[in-house]
Amino acid sequence: MHTAAVVGTGLIGTSIALALSARGVTTHLLDRDPDRVRIAVARGAGTPGPPPEPVDIAVIAVPPWRTARALAEHQRAGLARVYTDVASVKALPHAECLALGCDTTTLVGGHPLAGRERSGPLAARADLFQDHHWVLTPTPDTTEAALNRALELVSLCGAVPALLEPPDHDRAVALVSHLPHLMATLTAGRLREGEEYAVRLAGRGMRDATRVASGDAALWADILAANATALAPLLTELRADLAAAAEALSQLSTAATDPAATAEALADLTALLQRGVEGRARITPPYNDPASRPHTMLSVALGDHDRPLSRLLDDVDEARLELDDVDLAGLAPHRPDRRGAGSAADSVGLKVAPGVARPLTEALRDRGWAVR
Amino acid sequence: MHTAAVVGTGLIGTSIALALSARGVTTHLLDRDPDRVRIAVARGAGTPGPPPEPVDIAVIAVPPWRTARALAEHQRAGLARVYTDVASVKALPHAECLALGCDTTTLVGGHPLAGRERSGPLAARADLFQDHHWVLTPTPDTTEAALNRALELVSLCGAVPALLEPPDHDRAVALVSHLPHLMATLTAGRLREGEEYAVRLAGRGMRDATRVASGDAALWADILAANATALAPLLTELRADLAAAAEALSQLSTAATDPAATAEALADLTALLQRGVEGRARITPPYNDPASRPHTMLSVALGDHDRPLSRLLDDVDEARLELDDVDLAGLAPHRPDRRGAGSAADSVGLKVAPGVARPLTEALRDRGWAVR
Repeated sequence: MHTAAVVGTGLIGTSIALALSARGVTTHLLDRDPDRVRIAVARGAGTPGPPPEPVDIAVIAVPPWRTARALAEHQRAGLARVYTDVASVKALPHAECLALGCDTTTLVGGHPLAGRERSGPLAARADLFQDHHWVLTPTPDTTEAALNRALELVSLCGAVPALLEPPDHDRAVALVSHLPHLMATLTAGRLREGEEYAVRLAGRGMRDATRVASGDAALWADILAANATALAPLLTELRADLAAAAEALSQLSTAATDPAATAEALADLTALLQRGVEGRARITPPYNDPASRPHTMLSVALGDHDRPLSRLLDDVDEARLELDDVDLAGLAPHRPDRRGAGSAADSVGLKVAPGVARPLTEALRDRGWAVR
Repeated sequence: MHTAAVVGTGLIGTSIALALSARGVTTHLLDRDPDRVRIAVARGAGTPGPPPEPVDIAVIAVPPWRTARALAEHQRAGLARVYTDVASVKALPHAECLALGCDTTTLVGGHPLAGRERSGPLAARADLFQDHHWVLTPTPDTTEAALNRALELVSLCGAVPALLEPPDHDRAVALVSHLPHLMATLTAGRLREGEEYAVRLAGRGMRDATRVASGDAALWADILAANATALAPLLTELRADLAAAAEALSQLSTAATDPAATAEALADLTALLQRGVEGRARITPPYNDPASRPHTMLSVALGDHDRPLSRLLDDVDEARLELDDVDLAGLAPHRPDRRGAGSAADSVGLKVAPGVARPLTEALRDRGWAVR
């Protein structure tokens, strides 16, 4: 890939252009708003205006409801040999493209799953897509050459490609993006009339749970509307869960005269919450997140030290390496901190992330501990 | 305050004990589980076992449903001169204390609003409460001396005290903690049966929106049940909002033949989402968060440089200080990047956080820019 065009120099378009320009691709920047192009150009994202001849790939990075028209328009004008877009919903824009008579052989729908709270070209970053998923939705019409060009684009942006049928993509984002957005936003909406003393108690939990609710309301209404069909069954299920939770809480809030009914309501509520714990556990941690790696258990013999457990934990503290857990199973229960002398067989387990196992072992051996 | 007792050496109790011990308060640690006391002692949180004589304050840091019984038991045993607790719900435990015949003059209900995903004494930190809110719920019976002792405890832990009536506290946490917990958990529950290809697309938005859903289901069911009365009206309102959103989306998902009805549904959905944006905007950012401070606009004269806007943004990049926005209003519109010479009156505005204004001004002046 030698040449590219980015239509729409907002956060996503300019970030793609920055990534491509950094890899030596000559990138042409187009936008209705000349100020946005000027900022993108000034940031090194590419050159302003249309290319002198068709580029290898054009990225249509405009809002979802303008995607199909922009694609049709630029295809007719011969902007590129291959076209992709970044709309967060795929089935509807694809149907619109067909209706507008687009050439679907050179078309590969796309959706990079990355973003920031800030928008516009100034917030763009060349590494915005690094290690993020980027869905491509080729159709049976799409040529292999077009798909490979789109895969090259994803690769140059450092993202992880995922090929999906448009309806599967739309069901997936309904589940992992649109449903949580709607729920977080409705939850945040309850703050609007909250008492001042109540709102001021909102801490990190509330901030994180409702962070996405800051998103532009009109933009998100359009996104949710464009994906209403995929969202509908999820909303129905969630409303049923919410009704069940409300029913259980109603039983639990009344002056309980029937212990069996109360116990059943608590069990129902616990089961509902447990489903959430299990669903949450399915989310893959980000790449390179230490939490995603399995754990290692180090066994440390406590030997004949005075107050060995205190000294061991002090030494771990000094090594500035984080423990996930301590397993005291190997410690004799009748000697709480082994203040006196003890059997050399006594030991404790230290549960650590694998990256921590080696430096912690070395640090503890330096301090005289026998570590296995 | 010279002496304290902490009953329950989990995350919260051990963190309080670490903070008190660090400030020179002799702190006695009690727990049903001797392993937890041993770890807390080894971490320097205090000394194991009950004090030889009544302490200045005892902190009952056990689960909410054991709080009243533990308070009554330790009051009868004369553990301390003043008692507080850390239960996340206040009206129900207080009623239980009254029913158990507790002395309410020496009792100050408390709730430190801080936590971590990890639990237990190993996860404890002396600075867990630093700059967090800590609600105290004295009643008309509570003596001023008891309240002042509890305020001293909050201060020694570095937290910000907030005095509330127990029912007001419970309504507040229903809004900013229990409702978001329930909604995030039900949303995460939908992932449980999601297709593998869908779940794997979950990114930061979904992770943050459902982070609290990892919390222990049985513990949270007890918390929600204990606050069911305050939660009920919020759930009713949220279910009405959700029904309205589902109705609007249903209208938007059908092959729309009535443009007026479609436009109305989109307006309804946008209004619902806008309520969330406004509610979210009421959340106070954390102390020391740069985002909570107002912005400063710097005006930079572009002078007679070649390609001044590109050079200016390059120089800002090099200074490694983040811009929030660029205002190009002062730039003549007919010269996109002022490639040629231009009027010295041309300038651009740089919108920055106040903390950034001074270092950025200096960095840009060092590079020859005229900054106001």
